[in-house]
Amino acid sequence: MTMQTSFPQSILYGADYNPEQWPSSTWEEDIRLMKLAGVNMVSINIFSWSLLEPQSGEYSFDTLDRIMDLLGNNDIMADLATSTASPPPWMSRVFPEITCVTSDGKRMNHGSRCHFCPNSKDYRHKSAALVRNLARRYHAHRALAMWHVNNEYGPYCYCDNCAIAFRHWLRKRYQTLGTLNYAWSTSVWSQTYYNWEDIIPPRITPQQSNPSQELDYQHFMSDSILECFLNEKQVIREFTPNIPITTNFMVAYKPLDYFNWAPHVDIISVDIYPPHTAQAWETAITFDLMRSLKRGQPFIVMEQTPSQVNWMQQNPHKRPGNLRLQCHQAVAHGADGVLYFQFRQAKGGPEKFHSAIVSHEGTEHNRIFKQAAQIGAEMKKISSVVVGSKIKAEVAIILDWQNWWAVEYLPGPSDQLKYWEQIGVWYRALHGQNRIVDFVRPEDDLSPYRLVFAPVLYQIRPGVAENLERFVSTGGRLVTTFFSGIVDEHDQVILGGYPGPLRNLLGIWVEEFDPWTPEMSNIVRVGKELSGKDEGEDYPCHLWGELVHLEGATSYGVFKHDYYVNHAAITKNKFGKGEAWYVATKPNDKLVNEIVGHVAAGTGKDVIVDLPVGVEKTIRVNANGKDIIFLFNRTGEVAKVSLRRSSYKSLLTGETVKHELDVTPGDVAIILQS
Amino acid sequence: MTMQTSFPQSILYGADYNPEQWPSSTWEEDIRLMKLAGVNMVSINIFSWSLLEPQSGEYSFDTLDRIMDLLGNNDIMADLATSTASPPPWMSRVFPEITCVTSDGKRMNHGSRCHFCPNSKDYRHKSAALVRNLARRYHAHRALAMWHVNNEYGPYCYCDNCAIAFRHWLRKRYQTLGTLNYAWSTSVWSQTYYNWEDIIPPRITPQQSNPSQELDYQHFMSDSILECFLNEKQVIREFTPNIPITTNFMVAYKPLDYFNWAPHVDIISVDIYPPHTAQAWETAITFDLMRSLKRGQPFIVMEQTPSQVNWMQQNPHKRPGNLRLQCHQAVAHGADGVLYFQFRQAKGGPEKFHSAIVSHEGTEHNRIFKQAAQIGAEMKKISSVVVGSKIKAEVAIILDWQNWWAVEYLPGPSDQLKYWEQIGVWYRALHGQNRIVDFVRPEDDLSPYRLVFAPVLYQIRPGVAENLERFVSTGGRLVTTFFSGIVDEHDQVILGGYPGPLRNLLGIWVEEFDPWTPEMSNIVRVGKELSGKDEGEDYPCHLWGELVHLEGATSYGVFKHDYYVNHAAITKNKFGKGEAWYVATKPNDKLVNEIVGHVAAGTGKDVIVDLPVGVEKTIRVNANGKDIIFLFNRTGEVAKVSLRRSSYKSLLTGETVKHELDVTPGDVAIILQS
Amino acid sequence: MTMQTSFPQSILYGADYNPEQWPSSTWEEDIRLMKLAGVNMVSINIFSWSLLEPQSGEYSFDTLDRIMDLLGNNDIMADLATSTASPPPWMSRVFPEITCVTSDGKRMNHGSRCHFCPNSKDYRHKSAALVRNLARRYHAHRALAMWHVNNEYGPYCYCDNCAIAFRHWLRKRYQTLGTLNYAWSTSVWSQTYYNWEDIIPPRITPQQSNPSQELDYQHFMSDSILECFLNEKQVIREFTPNIPITTNFMVAYKPLDYFNWAPHVDIISVDIYPPHTAQAWETAITFDLMRSLKRGQPFIVMEQTPSQVNWMQQNPHKRPGNLRLQCHQAVAHGADGVLYFQFRQAKGGPEKFHSAIVSHEGTEHNRIFKQAAQIGAEMKKISSVVVGSKIKAEVAIILDWQNWWAVEYLPGPSDQLKYWEQIGVWYRALHGQNRIVDFVRPEDDLSPYRLVFAPVLYQIRPGVAENLERFVSTGGRLVTTFFSGIVDEHDQVILGGYPGPLRNLLGIWVEEFDPWTPEMSNIVRVGKELSGKDEGEDYPCHLWGELVHLEGATSYGVFKHDYYVNHAAITKNKFGKGEAWYVATKPNDKLVNEIVGHVAAGTGKDVIVDLPVGVEKTIRVNANGKDIIFLFNRTGEVAKVSLRRSSYKSLLTGETVKHELDVTPGDVAIILQS
Repeated sequence: MTMQTSFPQSILYGADYNPEQWPSSTWEEDIRLMKLAGVNMVSINIFSWSLLEPQSGEYSFDTLDRIMDLLGNNDIMADLATSTASPPPWMSRVFPEITCVTSDGKRMNHGSRCHFCPNSKDYRHKSAALVRNLARRYHAHRALAMWHVNNEYGPYCYCDNCAIAFRHWLRKRYQTLGTLNYAWSTSVWSQTYYNWEDIIPPRITPQQSNPSQELDYQHFMSDSILECFLNEKQVIREFTPNIPITTNFMVAYKPLDYFNWAPHVDIISVDIYPPHTAQAWETAITFDLMRSLKRGQPFIVMEQTPSQVNWMQQNPHKRPGNLRLQCHQAVAHGADGVLYFQFRQAKGGPEKFHSAIVSHEGTEHNRIFKQAAQIGAEMKKISSVVVGSKIKAEVAIILDWQNWWAVEYLPGPSDQLKYWEQIGVWYRALHGQNRIVDFVRPEDDLSPYRLVFAPVLYQIRPGVAENLERFVSTGGRLVTTFFSGIVDEHDQVILGGYPGPLRNLLGIWVEEFDPWTPEMSNIVRVGKELSGKDEGEDYPCHLWGELVHLEGATSYGVFKHDYYVNHAAITKNKFGKGEAWYVATKPNDKLVNEIVGHVAAGTGKDVIVDLPVGVEKTIRVNANGKDIIFLFNRTGEVAKVSLRRSSYKSLLTGETVKHELDVTPGDVAIILQS
Repeated sequence: MTMQTSFPQSILYGADYNPEQWPSSTWEEDIRLMKLAGVNMVSINIFSWSLLEPQSGEYSFDTLDRIMDLLGNNDIMADLATSTASPPPWMSRVFPEITCVTSDGKRMNHGSRCHFCPNSKDYRHKSAALVRNLARRYHAHRALAMWHVNNEYGPYCYCDNCAIAFRHWLRKRYQTLGTLNYAWSTSVWSQTYYNWEDIIPPRITPQQSNPSQELDYQHFMSDSILECFLNEKQVIREFTPNIPITTNFMVAYKPLDYFNWAPHVDIISVDIYPPHTAQAWETAITFDLMRSLKRGQPFIVMEQTPSQVNWMQQNPHKRPGNLRLQCHQAVAHGADGVLYFQFRQAKGGPEKFHSAIVSHEGTEHNRIFKQAAQIGAEMKKISSVVVGSKIKAEVAIILDWQNWWAVEYLPGPSDQLKYWEQIGVWYRALHGQNRIVDFVRPEDDLSPYRLVFAPVLYQIRPGVAENLERFVSTGGRLVTTFFSGIVDEHDQVILGGYPGPLRNLLGIWVEEFDPWTPEMSNIVRVGKELSGKDEGEDYPCHLWGELVHLEGATSYGVFKHDYYVNHAAITKNKFGKGEAWYVATKPNDKLVNEIVGHVAAGTGKDVIVDLPVGVEKTIRVNANGKDIIFLFNRTGEVAKVSLRRSSYKSLLTGETVKHELDVTPGDVAIILQS
Repeated sequence: MTMQTSFPQSILYGADYNPEQWPSSTWEEDIRLMKLAGVNMVSINIFSWSLLEPQSGEYSFDTLDRIMDLLGNNDIMADLATSTASPPPWMSRVFPEITCVTSDGKRMNHGSRCHFCPNSKDYRHKSAALVRNLARRYHAHRALAMWHVNNEYGPYCYCDNCAIAFRHWLRKRYQTLGTLNYAWSTSVWSQTYYNWEDIIPPRITPQQSNPSQELDYQHFMSDSILECFLNEKQVIREFTPNIPITTNFMVAYKPLDYFNWAPHVDIISVDIYPPHTAQAWETAITFDLMRSLKRGQPFIVMEQTPSQVNWMQQNPHKRPGNLRLQCHQAVAHGADGVLYFQFRQAKGGPEKFHSAIVSHEGTEHNRIFKQAAQIGAEMKKISSVVVGSKIKAEVAIILDWQNWWAVEYLPGPSDQLKYWEQIGVWYRALHGQNRIVDFVRPEDDLSPYRLVFAPVLYQIRPGVAENLERFVSTGGRLVTTFFSGIVDEHDQVILGGYPGPLRNLLGIWVEEFDPWTPEMSNIVRVGKELSGKDEGEDYPCHLWGELVHLEGATSYGVFKHDYYVNHAAITKNKFGKGEAWYVATKPNDKLVNEIVGHVAAGTGKDVIVDLPVGVEKTIRVNANGKDIIFLFNRTGEVAKVSLRRSSYKSLLTGETVKHELDVTPGDVAIILQS
């Protein structure tokens, strides 16, 4: 079965579009405004199940037909959703078990959305039937450009149907109860299972639940929800083998292992809603992750807000200019499309105060529409150059959902330890130094990279230590941190001294890890190598300390206080042709920057000689090997950029750029190597 | 059917009285202490259902007979409660569906109070039967002076009986599902209803529920609980057409639309429990609201605490003197009765540490009793002059429960926006300037007023904009604020540009509203007109900003920062003979005072020429048109008050007052115009 | 039935030991390490029910046989647990009603531990059957030294089985519903019961529940859980009349009245997990309480952690040296055994990051093992001298669980009032002055003591006032505080003026008690007697004020502000040969110290003349009447201790000590009088 791989052919620009919420008299005006704004694709039919199937088995496609025709006739591509994220109200009555249940036994109700149980046979059956009808009807429609399965797949369920499915999943994983009992350490607290039917989801208990069971349940739930996706995808493929299928991800969403999902999704799309205070790296990390899910393949920003949202505690507008930079930043990090939620602001319902390209005021004569139209025009300008170009990273960060689930399940050493936050600590420094970062899984081939960061790699599955050793021994540089190398795939400790299977690679033994209360901290005393100062320098550190013994590694910094005074806090071990670093605490940002700068020295492609601090730079390379350089000036002053090569063309202004380029504050420059 | 309208004929003074909790040996002592304290009315039988009906259908009135006789024989009026607020324990067993259920499905239990479902047919039937027995038995009893239906009607229920009743209520409101689907915007998130039985209360859902459904449910619940009241009232009226019926309200209690209730209640009564730190305006606002509910008719303070309560996190005593001022303030704002909870402090149960006129110590020889006796004596002194007098307000504040429900339902723009708090912002300033305030509904006739404030009038129902335009065009001055004119009666946005139907009246277009996080703020730069200073003045503002365009209005202050710098923050629009003001943010108290002072200039009846700051003044006018002036000195110094007229009599001291009057700190003066 | 009373014969040293979690290849290594560490006892079989009874009625003892033999063959005593704290997973399926239910109706699940309902007949039956099998099998095993029933008995249940059992308990207590209705003040809020079956546990209600019902439910639950203990004990005694039986307590654990439990337990054992920031008095108070439960009989520390735990929000290690001091402090306060949780750190499950004697690293070559081995060696050194010695206290603090339950049940006067915290206020001062403290119940014989403290003795049961009067009149000194003498055994107020039955003894009348908000405070102005200064001194006080009138007592300090200015805050009343003190607020620590110092003057046995501040001292007296003095130096400097007697022997160093002794910082000295 083949799939169209040259999609998209131009930068997608558009929004969720819900004409069914409006009288058809509005539709022509919508089209006029879409064209004004430069829209070439809209996502439709996201929440229309109750419209399409007014009673069980009886379908009605009149409205959708008209919407599809409207788009087709106006050359606007449809990202056609399957509408299965919100079952109609009648369904909770006819099939009561389709609704999901919390871990403390509360059954959810209709009246909102996402209230389905992923393991409900009724839900699976009814959603497949709906999709079959949709695919049969629209597979050849000229507007159909992409399929959008469900929407923001999400919450977990703990109902009896899930219990049954969980047992099947476990049988497949463990074959026998003996294996399961061993994997789950059920000899602790008298939990040995002798009957499969005694196994239940991790529902509420008076004290801590079993962490291995919790870990498996998260894995199982991610898989169960993926099965919902596959259930629909299979039907769609029968009818349209060449139309790409997506489902919109939600940034680094802990409940779903997107690395596991990605191979099944034709094109990655993401909904991104940063707070209005977000810094540049906080959006960049999302884009880099999305690009990485399918190893560099362009992704789409499926949803972002033109200005304010409605679901934060307070919802200020995005300040003028922010949205434009965010859109270009997405492209700069590998997106080939930026869409919004939504085209026309809702008149009623829970999302009526979520901003949209067309606001309640209804015309093109307001700030938000004008801004969207400007961005639309710019996307059109850069489209032909950008589409088809790729990004090449020399640095990777290991991100692992199973590790995430395991490391954050209490009872653990510290509730202050958040995996995604620790990933961010290192990403922020890399981004600040303009290193493009790929995200990889621990088992992935690391040979394309010169540097790999693996913060808090708590769980080491079989083969991972060997993979890291292979990377380092052949010349790679690895940086890992405290609380790494602790457990195996079942969350069982690897005995014999931390960091377990990484001990040899890192050349250290961690006798104790010591999670600190918020009142506790320490100082890392760093020597000349890292600080660049003859007298060394002191840096505060927080969150965590360790009692580290050197077993071949060299200390690059020591703790200054407490009972591990003068013990190593930062170590480097030469291993084969490479080096393996260990950071036994959470240093302050400054020290993280020093470490990153030191480790990354000598890598990177210095296209630009002199880049002021605070200017973000990325490079996409087109099919001819020419650089497309993106430069974002978020400082308050004109950024003077010196270029090594002498000839570029500015895609937005059309001007020719020689050795020097001025980027005004708040602006972006996109220049193509001639 | 007629009702006695001259009630009460003297100021009511008394308390809740629960002799059934005490041996009858205590009762005679109670009467002695009541007389010492000046008590002339007590509320009885509040929680006696389990005493009156020991098993289903079997009644026992012996104790109540003796209590009624005791009161009658001692010329103490009975405010006879119907006892339906706490069904007996056996009732949850015999009629399991009478107990109420939370929105997340938890069924409540007996063992406390208020655990009934308002839509339980069993509850309605059993409570009506009890009331019938009470009314039949006591309708001609000499002690009976007032009926007290139920007690502090309150919590909502989400059970299956409520679901059925909700559907009936909706059918009546919308006739067809098509109308309901439109009103509820059910095309959003696939919520279209095709069967009435699919509609349920807004029970827990995984994401935001439907705001129109929530709005209707609050309206429905307020109505359902009102039906419980009417269910009892109807039975009572059969037996006693001329005895007034009340039920005790709970200040501005969001769940119940007291404006809707008020026409059905003969006399408004209220339970008021301000924190010990409450300022004068915080109690005054309650009294003004209660007086307004029946358009100036005197109300009763049914419950207040003599000193400490038992249900706050910590329960300090009221400081000496505070209670006396609060009692007189109630009268000053229109009360014709002040009662307490309760007469004799309970020996056991949840309220045993709630203070009472007679404390655990049991005698008249303690601070709390003496204080109550002093107030009792003072009420007697002023009674004949005060009863029958009325209050006339020139200022009104629009208060609207449906608006309250709608504006505070998340997902909204800001969880910091509290309607009652915004009402308070403007009330506080008016109170500080000694303006007596009526509360009105948006549809009410506004012609009696010269000034109307309508803070955060988010919801504009049909006819409201016209009502406001009529008021202003005929010379009224209107002040409204940010987030007004946004939605209709179904919480659907009125399209075409904010503030929708108020745009013409206010002469502005609000392009964007921008709710701020607590970290955000701005400055309003105000000119000479409002600040009184040639160079203008800067005032901080919080919570909310807007991007305002003038469409005929004049700016009286602009934002000093952010992307709406120099755009208007305060505007005035001349409209017909009047003027309509708009305040696009929450100014600090000082600026609110300036605005109120400016807008109110030239209104008000200046009986008193020179009134020191911090002295509260109200005026009741008796049947002969003579002023009764109340003066409260809450400052730390003697307040020297200059009077325009030359001859008054002090009701508490008996002295004649000429042009000048000294009020000592912490004291109240009540003077009658001769 | 007799019981071995000379147990233990040497200081017990060991840990929880869970070999069933490990391959038997590990066991011999465990024995080797136990011997290295000085372990002589281990607690086994704590959570093995699912191992022992794989399906209902089918038992398997092979593994346990091997464990018992292993211990027996190596002369390590077994504290054999009954394994009933965590029923096997199959049991929730076969006997669904064994699982417990929260007060808001949530049924707990297996998958953790402690999920059984204490009133489940199935649970009682199945646990007794298991214990019978265990006792029959191992009663004569050479390893068996002690029985460990269940583990950390704990949570309450509110299920229907508990409702039935509650009614039985109430019938026994009250005989008739009339008595119950009176005791529970059910005339309040219409709660009169006419049928026993209408009585339910205090499950969720819309408003406050009945405090007398809550009080009885706590008493009932403590009794119900005690019945579970007795249910197992009875079976054990049949087989082993002379083997001591324990169950591990959890410090001052509010849900269970350990004073009520203690007579049924042969030897008190306790699990103690102080935070790493705990001060010396915070552990000492636990040890003193445990020693007091059986009136001075030695107790065992059953569980403590060698270093970090896993269940706090963050889990830092114990700093080096702290554990050693804590172990010796336990012995210094009366322990004859210190054990840990656990011997070998778990590989998986919820407790894998709880430290253990043998860490994940697995050898004896790390800090934690070495520390445990050192302590083990020291325990061996002092064992023969210490075992058999006793502690004699001259000071007692009254601690009463029923009072605790009553005083902390809201709706009360203040949620800031915590009983155990108030006990701590006075204990801390006594500990700081090196007074050994017994804890007693209010009804206990107080004649052994010279000083008795009774903080917040809110509830006065029949006979208690007389007991206190007897103590004072015969020369005792009593200190009690605010909020004492308020209610009887049913939480009903004792009328006629606070402090009710203590009014005569204390010589005061408390007109009002005034709980303060956190923003409120006052000053106690104290005269020369307490402050030692001619001009007196001011001390801040918090939490609570009272309006106190002297009725024979003398004021030793007055409030400086508020409406009780110059009213007494501290009073002393001479009563017979003794004196009764009253403290009407919570003074700061300094004033508490002054009061304690003043009241205790002239008591105490001054073995040591000059003891530096910050050095803790206790004395155990051996069978020959010789003192064993424990001296703990927690200051940063060498403590120079002068001794009154001239000849001691240091048990840890073996040196002879004459008049002077230096204790180094962080060290403990244990010296035996020659």
